[in-house]
Amino acid sequence: MIKLERIMDQLLELGQIGWEPERGMNRPPYSPAYDRAREFVRRIMDEAGMKTRIDAVGNLFGRYEGNVAGMKILLSGSHLDAVPEGGIYDGPLGVLGALEAMRSLHEAGNRHPLEVVAFTGEEGGEMGGTFGSRCFAGAVDFGHLPPDDVMESLGVSREKILMSRGDSGNYEAYIELHIEQGPVLIDQSAGIGIPTAIAGITRYLVTVSGEANHAGTTPMTARFDALKSAVEVLGEWYEYAFSRKDFVSNVGKLAVYPGSPAIIPGSVEFVLEMRSVDRDSIEQGVGKMKSILATLKNSKGTMSLMIDKGAAAMNPLLREKIAFVSDELGLKWLELPSGAMHDAAPVSREMPSAMIFIPSIGGVSHSKDEFSTPQDIRNGVEVLARTLHMLDRK
Amino acid sequence: MIKLERIMDQLLELGQIGWEPERGMNRPPYSPAYDRAREFVRRIMDEAGMKTRIDAVGNLFGRYEGNVAGMKILLSGSHLDAVPEGGIYDGPLGVLGALEAMRSLHEAGNRHPLEVVAFTGEEGGEMGGTFGSRCFAGAVDFGHLPPDDVMESLGVSREKILMSRGDSGNYEAYIELHIEQGPVLIDQSAGIGIPTAIAGITRYLVTVSGEANHAGTTPMTARFDALKSAVEVLGEWYEYAFSRKDFVSNVGKLAVYPGSPAIIPGSVEFVLEMRSVDRDSIEQGVGKMKSILATLKNSKGTMSLMIDKGAAAMNPLLREKIAFVSDELGLKWLELPSGAMHDAAPVSREMPSAMIFIPSIGGVSHSKDEFSTPQDIRNGVEVLARTLHMLDRK
Repeated sequence: MIKLERIMDQLLELGQIGWEPERGMNRPPYSPAYDRAREFVRRIMDEAGMKTRIDAVGNLFGRYEGNVAGMKILLSGSHLDAVPEGGIYDGPLGVLGALEAMRSLHEAGNRHPLEVVAFTGEEGGEMGGTFGSRCFAGAVDFGHLPPDDVMESLGVSREKILMSRGDSGNYEAYIELHIEQGPVLIDQSAGIGIPTAIAGITRYLVTVSGEANHAGTTPMTARFDALKSAVEVLGEWYEYAFSRKDFVSNVGKLAVYPGSPAIIPGSVEFVLEMRSVDRDSIEQGVGKMKSILATLKNSKGTMSLMIDKGAAAMNPLLREKIAFVSDELGLKWLELPSGAMHDAAPVSREMPSAMIFIPSIGGVSHSKDEFSTPQDIRNGVEVLARTLHMLDRK
Repeated sequence: MIKLERIMDQLLELGQIGWEPERGMNRPPYSPAYDRAREFVRRIMDEAGMKTRIDAVGNLFGRYEGNVAGMKILLSGSHLDAVPEGGIYDGPLGVLGALEAMRSLHEAGNRHPLEVVAFTGEEGGEMGGTFGSRCFAGAVDFGHLPPDDVMESLGVSREKILMSRGDSGNYEAYIELHIEQGPVLIDQSAGIGIPTAIAGITRYLVTVSGEANHAGTTPMTARFDALKSAVEVLGEWYEYAFSRKDFVSNVGKLAVYPGSPAIIPGSVEFVLEMRSVDRDSIEQGVGKMKSILATLKNSKGTMSLMIDKGAAAMNPLLREKIAFVSDELGLKWLELPSGAMHDAAPVSREMPSAMIFIPSIGGVSHSKDEFSTPQDIRNGVEVLARTLHMLDRK
């Protein structure tokens, strides 16, 4: 039923839109490259006989009507935008895979209405990550929007965000096919991953304050060096975090002020990120950082919450079906938490949702070297199509 | 002889040119504020009966001829530019103080020609620190100039740098009055500081390389986090550096790449600065950092030399004279190394040079809160005037 060659052709052709040699994919949301990519997918939807529409914030939907009146919509998809210097699979696989799966289901005669979605801005940008799916799920926090002129420059507004909310009562389920973006499936020689939950993301801005001064004339004994204090804080934090198995943590952004070689650092700011499917683990981590900051001498440490997205559990009944069809196909599958954020997280607030992962070679993603084999892609789309078929027959 | 009120009036009036309320002095070299400040000083020189000239890179000279033919010039001065958000004393004190001292000497009848200099760009900027005095001393490294278009935008060129070299054979000595910029004089209740040498500055760019990856999907055990490694390096470095008495060291600039909260740091770059009057101490420090970097596992550390300015010894005979007149005036004085760089460092390569420090309240400098008392200013100018008088009688 599934035509691998067609998916691969589409993936590779789509993968040229925004691609820069040596650097990789550059297709941020609301860019000309993004619009061309969405137009490319819309044309495929048209050719496949779908009715298409783009909502007020830019999410693209393709729809087949069902044969039986009054049934709820089966929804599948992912996103078309990419991180800077990203790859061609993260996002597009789930959109084109859903298109192929829905098409085969439609050719066999579908009872439910079927929709394929390409959410916009999953990877972040001015509007924050999973923007399109948060609009669809009514999960946009109006207290944390960017300034009006920024929104206007993107063609976004409060009204458009409200207008693009989906009518979740009309939907039966959402299933998203995606590359794993980590090494677990490869390491365990599994073909299919079934996320139990999508990890929550909590970010704090941590500030360590000392006293800026002249780096030549201030004796070492008279310094209140904020970077020295921050190094102590981070040393202790790493010792703690790298021994945990219940969350992952990263300090990926750090700035020293005023930032001159000849001035003793007056303050250091860094972003502490923690991800876990377990709320308690995050809270223990926050407590640990607080206690580390409290022990600082000669400097002051403070934390302020930037982001706190809760973990999103994936639907157990959908997960069972995915496991069932994986077994049917003779594919080794395993359950795992998703450390990466996905559109399925906000959508899961509104309807039963699940994901299907396929292996990422080398665990690499967000890189031009991101790669999944055609065989793994075929497996993923096949599992998706069969799961949707089971749901359609229900 | 010295008119304190006149110096204070001039200092405070000059201190309004480039001053921004709440922020402090913003008077970088080659800026309109800088040009106005230099014009202000030039007018005072004119009024004091000096012959003035501005050389090809922007150094301002005011000159009194001497009564005795064939005698060499006595030179004194400092700079008029300021660090961003700096104060009003660092630099201008030495220019206006020299002007007052030379004026009183001239009124008493001077034998030597007398010159007051306001060097340009002491605090750095595109052309690097002590730019004007390095031009005057023929100490500009033509292998490390900024691109031509940057120089052109400042009105600087290779030819102009060469044209502004002073004829050092015509000069007898250089003496520079300056605020200490540190807490030593205040802590020791001394009124006058006599630098033995100006510390050399050595800077290395240190790069620690790990592997950037997805901060959500990469297990903690599979990370090569460059910031974690850099924290280990800095922790060990601080333990070493903060126990040394023979040099000061600072890491004031540090950057994490790619610098996203959601990406494990792939590399970290920081600038390691060491200052000492003792060459061996610097070399031991470099060796220590090299050995720390060599112990890194899971990441790679490299060092590349950015700046290596040797220490500059101050002339012993001039220092003796400064000590002598300080004693005459009943002022407690002490010798100390200068951790800060000064125009006297390059100038000392070309002629006998020395400096006179006065206390900085709280040891504060490079700040809008930089302050020295009028009494200390009077003392400093008086010591300068008497020292120049001794040299003139020689």
